[in-house]
Amino acid sequence: MDFAEKLLQAVRKNKSLLCLGLDPDPALMPETGIFEFNKAIIDSTSDIVCAYKPNLAFYEALGTEGLTALQRTVDYIPGDIPIIGDAKRGDVGHTARAYAKALFEVLGFDAVTVNPYLGYDSIEPFMSYADKAVFILCLTSNPGAVDFQKAACSPEGEKTRQPLYQLVARKAREWNRRNNVGLVVGATHPEELREIRQLCPDMLLLIPGIGTQGGSLDWAVRYGTDSKGGSAIISSSRQILYASKGDNFAGAARRAADDLRRLINSLLPGSSVARGSDGS
Amino acid sequence: MDFAEKLLQAVRKNKSLLCLGLDPDPALMPETGIFEFNKAIIDSTSDIVCAYKPNLAFYEALGTEGLTALQRTVDYIPGDIPIIGDAKRGDVGHTARAYAKALFEVLGFDAVTVNPYLGYDSIEPFMSYADKAVFILCLTSNPGAVDFQKAACSPEGEKTRQPLYQLVARKAREWNRRNNVGLVVGATHPEELREIRQLCPDMLLLIPGIGTQGGSLDWAVRYGTDSKGGSAIISSSRQILYASKGDNFAGAARRAADDLRRLINSLLPGSSVARGSDGS
Repeated sequence: MDFAEKLLQAVRKNKSLLCLGLDPDPALMPETGIFEFNKAIIDSTSDIVCAYKPNLAFYEALGTEGLTALQRTVDYIPGDIPIIGDAKRGDVGHTARAYAKALFEVLGFDAVTVNPYLGYDSIEPFMSYADKAVFILCLTSNPGAVDFQKAACSPEGEKTRQPLYQLVARKAREWNRRNNVGLVVGATHPEELREIRQLCPDMLLLIPGIGTQGGSLDWAVRYGTDSKGGSAIISSSRQILYASKGDNFAGAARRAADDLRRLINSLLPGSSVARGSDGS
Repeated sequence: MDFAEKLLQAVRKNKSLLCLGLDPDPALMPETGIFEFNKAIIDSTSDIVCAYKPNLAFYEALGTEGLTALQRTVDYIPGDIPIIGDAKRGDVGHTARAYAKALFEVLGFDAVTVNPYLGYDSIEPFMSYADKAVFILCLTSNPGAVDFQKAACSPEGEKTRQPLYQLVARKAREWNRRNNVGLVVGATHPEELREIRQLCPDMLLLIPGIGTQGGSLDWAVRYGTDSKGGSAIISSSRQILYASKGDNFAGAARRAADDLRRLINSLLPGSSVARGSDGS
């Protein structure tokens, strides 16, 4: 089963387009081990999310303990929920192959995020895993997105100009021969999200940046989903994980996640695969 | 002591602009442990290189064993030789802080490589370590560099056009307030290397891509160094590490490294800090 099918089944089963970012931050967490924290969060949310997305930075910052917790977390997540390794890797071809092996074969992610700056041969080793998926950074949710991603560009030898993020979207569409390429587009750029969805009507979009980072959920859902109200993964981390620092943190996380899931569904057309017939 | 000073002392002491990439590949190595391989290579080269540069991909691909070997390698390298963590990380601000902590505080690198695609707030957490250095990917040595890095761009709100890699070089120069920012420029682009050196006359350039990747050493040295024959770090990995697969691999690596060091020095002006008075 490839990534798109695995995701679709999780979306249907859990009636959810919500992806939960598993980004452990000891300063915000209750006093418990990293894996124990993740385990409690997973136990309380695995029936209401469509994917989990650990960002590797937060585990690497905790050294060996963090990396062990990451591996245990990946192994613990139920097999029917896809796991996106948020790694944003990018390196020259033969080195990218080593990263693809690390992320897909050693850690065992179903999908990863990658950085486009090094071009085709830095991404091909990831795309060559037909059953896995690759989300290419297109337009990120942070303030620095303006520095390069919004620069007006022409591909070498062409005259037409477009923002760099659109050039990335077009290239990703061209490279998507195995139907396993998606894009990362921050919810903090609603107009640009709409343009990207028009350029790539059927591609999977991974959409971070709602909540803490200030992106509008309404526009993220409206502009980010495809014509059938699907193909979008709305990601949230801190506003769910750290809903409470008390003993009830896992229950508070579930309530925050389910509120968000329902709010997303209320913005979707009734025919969306993420909505039950009762609209829940 | 900051990175630039530590590097300069190593360049002077070892009369070398050569950085050795420590990229373990079990398929090319003699049958020995990763750390034991690196240890033998370090023992046989630490008096003729100016820096070591482990690329994290090759360690991550080997799982826990690889990551343990990486930490042992970093700890083993003599304290007077700077270590560049070739990680090419890039993420939104608060996540970039976690990566900077992982690379500078947990693993203990003296410098790292980062990807510019996410802009200022993705790099600032690295630059804020005043005693460390940050090498921003500018123009990489691989074929895919043409896809985006060479696209003709204008910064938002400006009309002048320049290749994206030049826009990155200009921004890096602007951001270099603590004098701890360098650029990565592949030796496979000699004309562009010359332009970048003109744009950034004093910045450190990390130059991979000679040898296996086909870049010309002659142009790399001529165009990559500053007006005093310094501020360039010429990096090589496979052609040195895998000079022999036999029991004599460390001796063969030393000979390959020393040949390359001397060849680089022969291309430098006599006044270069990397050259002894005897030209060796």
